[in-house]
Amino acid sequence: MSDTTRAPAHLDVVGIGNAVVDIIAPAPVAVAEEAGLAVGAMTLVDADQSDRIYGKMGQSLEMSGGSVANSMAAIAALGGRAGYIGRVNDDQFGKVFSHDCNAVGIAFENRPATDGLPTARCLVLVHPDAQRTMATYLGACTELGPADLDHGMIEGAAVTFLEGYLWDKPDAKAACLAAADVAHKAGRRVALSLSDPFCVDRWRAEFRELIHGHVDVLFANEAEITSLYEVDDFDLALQHVRGSVEIAALTRSEKGAVILKGDEVHVVDAAQIEHLVDTTGAGDLFAAGFLHGLTRGMDLHQCGRLGVLSAGAIIQQYGPRAERPLTPLVDQARDSHAKLAVAAA
Amino acid sequence: MSDTTRAPAHLDVVGIGNAVVDIIAPAPVAVAEEAGLAVGAMTLVDADQSDRIYGKMGQSLEMSGGSVANSMAAIAALGGRAGYIGRVNDDQFGKVFSHDCNAVGIAFENRPATDGLPTARCLVLVHPDAQRTMATYLGACTELGPADLDHGMIEGAAVTFLEGYLWDKPDAKAACLAAADVAHKAGRRVALSLSDPFCVDRWRAEFRELIHGHVDVLFANEAEITSLYEVDDFDLALQHVRGSVEIAALTRSEKGAVILKGDEVHVVDAAQIEHLVDTTGAGDLFAAGFLHGLTRGMDLHQCGRLGVLSAGAIIQQYGPRAERPLTPLVDQARDSHAKLAVAAA
Repeated sequence: MSDTTRAPAHLDVVGIGNAVVDIIAPAPVAVAEEAGLAVGAMTLVDADQSDRIYGKMGQSLEMSGGSVANSMAAIAALGGRAGYIGRVNDDQFGKVFSHDCNAVGIAFENRPATDGLPTARCLVLVHPDAQRTMATYLGACTELGPADLDHGMIEGAAVTFLEGYLWDKPDAKAACLAAADVAHKAGRRVALSLSDPFCVDRWRAEFRELIHGHVDVLFANEAEITSLYEVDDFDLALQHVRGSVEIAALTRSEKGAVILKGDEVHVVDAAQIEHLVDTTGAGDLFAAGFLHGLTRGMDLHQCGRLGVLSAGAIIQQYGPRAERPLTPLVDQARDSHAKLAVAAA
Repeated sequence: MSDTTRAPAHLDVVGIGNAVVDIIAPAPVAVAEEAGLAVGAMTLVDADQSDRIYGKMGQSLEMSGGSVANSMAAIAALGGRAGYIGRVNDDQFGKVFSHDCNAVGIAFENRPATDGLPTARCLVLVHPDAQRTMATYLGACTELGPADLDHGMIEGAAVTFLEGYLWDKPDAKAACLAAADVAHKAGRRVALSLSDPFCVDRWRAEFRELIHGHVDVLFANEAEITSLYEVDDFDLALQHVRGSVEIAALTRSEKGAVILKGDEVHVVDAAQIEHLVDTTGAGDLFAAGFLHGLTRGMDLHQCGRLGVLSAGAIIQQYGPRAERPLTPLVDQARDSHAKLAVAAA
């Protein structure tokens, strides 16, 4: 990718992901366990399983979700220009999802399907300790494929951001690879979120190959990156990832984040949290903050700082879409001073 | 209605109302005005109008609503036994509505319609000052009629609670009158909320007749009760309502509430509010608190106090369904001392 050949970007980031409406409700951990869900992670379920689990959850609220879509909404809330590629049905949830993209200024051009499966829904079981377990019925998302890509949108975006969750369906995976190709040919960057440790477990070998060959910016949390390299220790995973990707942004919950680029290493402290409500969207908002910083020319420490500040904002409310503008965080991140840059071992 | 003939109630209150999912989003007052909506009140709209207005609202969140349904959810949250009669379609919003009834323990037995119009939706435009304007597309609610009544549920409930909004459709009105008849024949009470000043304006003569002949407990706010009697002054309206109904519970926003029964008059102060967020549901929760007190043998001042405390809780969060149990308010209301009982003029 050469900086000298590319045209000015129309968008900062275009995300490609599973377009999902979240159904958020309190539920004891036992409900997740009894349903065979991976507590703290995302499990794919069919429509009947989804209905059964929903029946055991408390009073719910619904809002647009989807990992990369949440990131795009946050980029818009930070003042950035975001686009989105994904599939919904022309049903009530599909209208909600599309509306919420438009309402925050995300360019979302895909026509809703008028037949086929309903819009995807994700049951978000919020446990008493504010951790969450997710059960996703993919519905219309299973029909996402290369034909849904808007090449012009990808060519015109500084970064194309993919979610690992897309690997669960062959057509969506093909769409990702095609999108990465279009982006790189236009001299743009490709970013990937590993999404979930169980997702990494399903697609470890393919993800390693993908990261090495097609990804410029990698997002992963501690569980995901250690799963990717099948190691027990974060520091060991860090040695593995170094050199396989241009930039790696690794999050560690309350321990903050570590950013790697070549020999550069930045350790970023977590944001201060006054009142933890619901951890849904923490990773999505970190990625949004980081990518917004990157596309706006911040240094890597500032990018990481904007990531942790954005994540910190979202876990102090219900759901993964920010209730308030996030723009004040941009100046906060710019003011942060780079921590000691640790030389590579 | 004779207290001596009735069997023990299985339910404290059964509500009959429009079963609605709320779509709540910030919107400037200008959006409501340009759409021709009555600012601060509820306007009925068709599906196209609903879509147009929705397109101008901000990022939304969805949750179950419906005036009397909100009251039933609050009665459940207060520890009471609530039932509900209403119509939804077997679509995504209908599933959300039914789930949320079940999740909080409301007995809701009506089968969702598998054809016909979609589940009703209410656009709740939350303005910067926390006031709200509503635009309702009634959908499946327009098909509610006497056949949907569960007579056993009504006969077994201490109070049957109707919403004035039902008057907008002839079949729903017929259902209300039939329900009132069933309730009274079983020796139960009938309560009515006047819903909205514009609704009163549409049905003034019928409401007056209804209240005089069929209603034991009347809920109205200042705008509704003055509209009902076409007077400018709250005190004048109070003189009119006295004697037409067994109990009148009249709310006045930050001025609290006035409760009338025969010669008894109770003036109840509003609850202290720390952080006003969204006034949606204030009237619904007042009615819930009042009715819960009434069915649990509290005195009228305590009933009013539980009403204002419940209303105070709901306006400090988004949406009309309480995020937390309301049971602590019951003891708070019981501790309150009756204010000076003013002898009637």
